[in-house]
Amino acid sequence: MAELLKGALVARSITEKCAERAEKLQNRGVVPTLAIVRVGENDSDLSYERGAEKRCREAGIAVRGIHFAADVDNETYLSAIRELNEDNGVHGILLLMPLPPQLDEKAARKALIPGKDVDGCTAGSLAGVFMNSGEGFPPCTAQAAMELLDYYGVECKGKQAAVAGRSLVFGRPAAMLLMHRNATVTVCHSRTEEMEKVLRQADIVLVGIGKMESIGKEYFRPGQTVIDIGIHWNAEKQKLCGDVRFDEAETVVTAITPVPGGVGAVTTSVLAKHVIDAAERLSGESLSGRD
Amino acid sequence: MAELLKGALVARSITEKCAERAEKLQNRGVVPTLAIVRVGENDSDLSYERGAEKRCREAGIAVRGIHFAADVDNETYLSAIRELNEDNGVHGILLLMPLPPQLDEKAARKALIPGKDVDGCTAGSLAGVFMNSGEGFPPCTAQAAMELLDYYGVECKGKQAAVAGRSLVFGRPAAMLLMHRNATVTVCHSRTEEMEKVLRQADIVLVGIGKMESIGKEYFRPGQTVIDIGIHWNAEKQKLCGDVRFDEAETVVTAITPVPGGVGAVTTSVLAKHVIDAAERLSGESLSGRD
Repeated sequence: MAELLKGALVARSITEKCAERAEKLQNRGVVPTLAIVRVGENDSDLSYERGAEKRCREAGIAVRGIHFAADVDNETYLSAIRELNEDNGVHGILLLMPLPPQLDEKAARKALIPGKDVDGCTAGSLAGVFMNSGEGFPPCTAQAAMELLDYYGVECKGKQAAVAGRSLVFGRPAAMLLMHRNATVTVCHSRTEEMEKVLRQADIVLVGIGKMESIGKEYFRPGQTVIDIGIHWNAEKQKLCGDVRFDEAETVVTAITPVPGGVGAVTTSVLAKHVIDAAERLSGESLSGRD
Repeated sequence: MAELLKGALVARSITEKCAERAEKLQNRGVVPTLAIVRVGENDSDLSYERGAEKRCREAGIAVRGIHFAADVDNETYLSAIRELNEDNGVHGILLLMPLPPQLDEKAARKALIPGKDVDGCTAGSLAGVFMNSGEGFPPCTAQAAMELLDYYGVECKGKQAAVAGRSLVFGRPAAMLLMHRNATVTVCHSRTEEMEKVLRQADIVLVGIGKMESIGKEYFRPGQTVIDIGIHWNAEKQKLCGDVRFDEAETVVTAITPVPGGVGAVTTSVLAKHVIDAAERLSGESLSGRD
């Protein structure tokens, strides 16, 4: 039976540190503030927003909800982003995506300034991740995987790591973050041949391919640490499942994140951390290192 | 004996296509123009500039040399970049690096607009490479490796590729370019353990670690294609050498670039191609696809 890398403990630790830093900011008259920009009322947006609000409250962060009707026009939406960029009372901006078809998602990402891009969706943030320049912020899910590794003392340096999935919200940035921690990283994707073999060779395996329970025990060996960022509703089993077949993997590997309760539980605390980072940077004084 | 992947043929093919596109641009009154910004007179800059000028001439590209004394001040240097950004008669800007210590290299990169950044040194270009968005340009050396693979018909899709080196001028962007071509890519670096094993597993091996003749036959196996971007003066042998011990590798692998005459011979033709791309984009009409 593998060690369970539960996200709740990690999230609590991150949130507590955020709350301390938030208090210092507030003592200087800075109320760290996240603007969440939502269009329409789809369930997953509402659910994520509720989770983020709750976490931010615990972390001493104010949340400003900016809500548009599902049929908002593009110029109104982009203007709101530009206003938030300029607003000194807002330190982080989260654009809930995907957007309805009348809105230009690419233009929205371009409109957002990287300094407030706390979920790493702009070219500036992604350049920062690629170059390791410290500009902008990595996507929260990719950073959450690193926080889990750190919290549970999983050393990356000199280790073989494999990332399954090459999306810009997870796979590619996570690969860069692992490489910056001196892991030797392989990125696998839909065109990878013998992915079983590639994942089995790695010491650290990150999975984010968006296919429910598609990675079974043939991808794993003893000694591995597995982080699963997938989250899917399994109608047959009537429960949430990851990309990994957890029941199979946990009999083989050394440590694995559960789904739910793994990476997903950490993501909003990383979001909160990024808001605090942004507030410190934007208020001109870094009270603590970022990572 | 391995097949020799000579750069000259690749460069000629790229240059000929550039010349055709340059002619079309000139017929529309657009003279594709590269500005080369040089500070001081060090040998490697002068040599690279001469090579680039010659190649550009063959490709129908005008070159404007902007030369500063070695002690130029930072503001003068940055102003020159900003002027070139605004100059409609200039389509590509090459900043010869590294810069002397009184100049702020980071600020120079920030000043340059990605649309004219034909050697991929800006955050905008690197974000373009990471995101595969088509913005800016990849670094010429990384792209030159891809041109070699293409010219010699080396398929990347589904193949294992290993990149030794993680610099921003080669390793990291080359890894992304290989991944966008659907290879399964592993990035190795100074902290990689058992690099021999990692390179030996790959079908395509790109080496750019900056250490003369440090990669010998124990890193290779039959069936591999090897691209060596290293170039060093071997004082003992009185000749140019790569990062790979060529004499050993060529007895093992299927195909390999020579040094000199491999990637180095292709780089300036890629630079020329990027200037033509930039001229087409900036003059508002793409006469041909970019890659």
